[in-house]
Amino acid sequence: MKIAVLGTGMVGQALAGRLDELGHEVAVGTRDVAGTMARTAPDGMGNPPYPAWAGARPRVRLATFADAAARAELLVNATSGGVSMAALAAAGTKNLAGKVLIDIANPLDFSQGFPPSLLVKDTDSLGEQIQAAYPELKVVKALNTLTAALMVNPVQLAGGQHSVFVSGNDPDAKKTVIGLLDSFGHTDVIDLGDISAARGTEMLMPLWLRLMGALNTPMFNFKVVR
Amino acid sequence: MKIAVLGTGMVGQALAGRLDELGHEVAVGTRDVAGTMARTAPDGMGNPPYPAWAGARPRVRLATFADAAARAELLVNATSGGVSMAALAAAGTKNLAGKVLIDIANPLDFSQGFPPSLLVKDTDSLGEQIQAAYPELKVVKALNTLTAALMVNPVQLAGGQHSVFVSGNDPDAKKTVIGLLDSFGHTDVIDLGDISAARGTEMLMPLWLRLMGALNTPMFNFKVVR
Repeated sequence: MKIAVLGTGMVGQALAGRLDELGHEVAVGTRDVAGTMARTAPDGMGNPPYPAWAGARPRVRLATFADAAARAELLVNATSGGVSMAALAAAGTKNLAGKVLIDIANPLDFSQGFPPSLLVKDTDSLGEQIQAAYPELKVVKALNTLTAALMVNPVQLAGGQHSVFVSGNDPDAKKTVIGLLDSFGHTDVIDLGDISAARGTEMLMPLWLRLMGALNTPMFNFKVVR
Repeated sequence: MKIAVLGTGMVGQALAGRLDELGHEVAVGTRDVAGTMARTAPDGMGNPPYPAWAGARPRVRLATFADAAARAELLVNATSGGVSMAALAAAGTKNLAGKVLIDIANPLDFSQGFPPSLLVKDTDSLGEQIQAAYPELKVVKALNTLTAALMVNPVQLAGGQHSVFVSGNDPDAKKTVIGLLDSFGHTDVIDLGDISAARGTEMLMPLWLRLMGALNTPMFNFKVVR
């Protein structure tokens, strides 16, 4: 599939790398191609700068948000939640219409330091805001509940015996996304219903962050035992 | 131990029944003893009215919030989140001072129907509000992330192989609560840190409610796989 991954950070790199490895035609979208390729320092989390990562993945093309989106059949929102709406606006309504968007972003507000608070919550969610802004886009909230390495390679933790969630208004779009999650190695994908269920998975972040502190690692995930 | 369970609903009954079974001296606290004992209809969830439940548990005493709290060494807040502050006010500051409170309540607002929204969230929590209102009370948030039957009998699901959380400011109080959770059969109690971690477990409710809908049962729980 032709896939645009919007966002050049840890989540974008994880998704783009894995999708490339699985044989998809991947473009990574960024606001400023020259600026992204000029980066030489690791990001705040110590991840290598984009050019260092991209050097080992010659098939992955870096493009503007609009260029990447225009040629894609499916998109991944791997931007920070606070800039997701701006990234999608830059991608352009006509380049999004009729396509599936896997929305991985969490609306975290780090402006007051750590732990972050949520930019939207409870009676609304980022997933719903994106869906409302682009009615012809088929938004599927997924993968925003675990660390990037496990999103794309779940089998490295307990053989993949843990759970992920999808929510969205379009059943066929969810089927497409579930197929991709299966191809990553996920064994338990739970369909929570329409996009308003994104409220639940986005509000999981505060517990996730406390668990990362308590366990001293991001390499964990929730399994829904039933 | 002498334990007061505040609240006569499904959660209060589950806790009081299990603690009685384990040999504790249990009083259930209510706003209006005569009113509670006059109930003849099941509650909104189809649970039997309090007198029918209490008839089979002659050792469990029904008392006012204040009376139950006064004689207790440890308290359980099993009231609805929306009335927890009023119940604790009725219990009385002097009857709470120096004691441990297991806070199971979720601040759910059903005033706009289902699904409920949260009365407090993100940068505050009900657990923190209780701790702030009663500085001498040792609040431990626990058990608010699973259905009542599994709170007190976790082994009936997957042999108890799933997780619960504690958070609170007093290490000894958490030790006491963890001991009780162990006695219920919990096998994985994760200490999330101070009481502000209650934000995380209270904000888990929206996901929990969507999962109950998707799975068509409340008999599930999260296991933190790591």
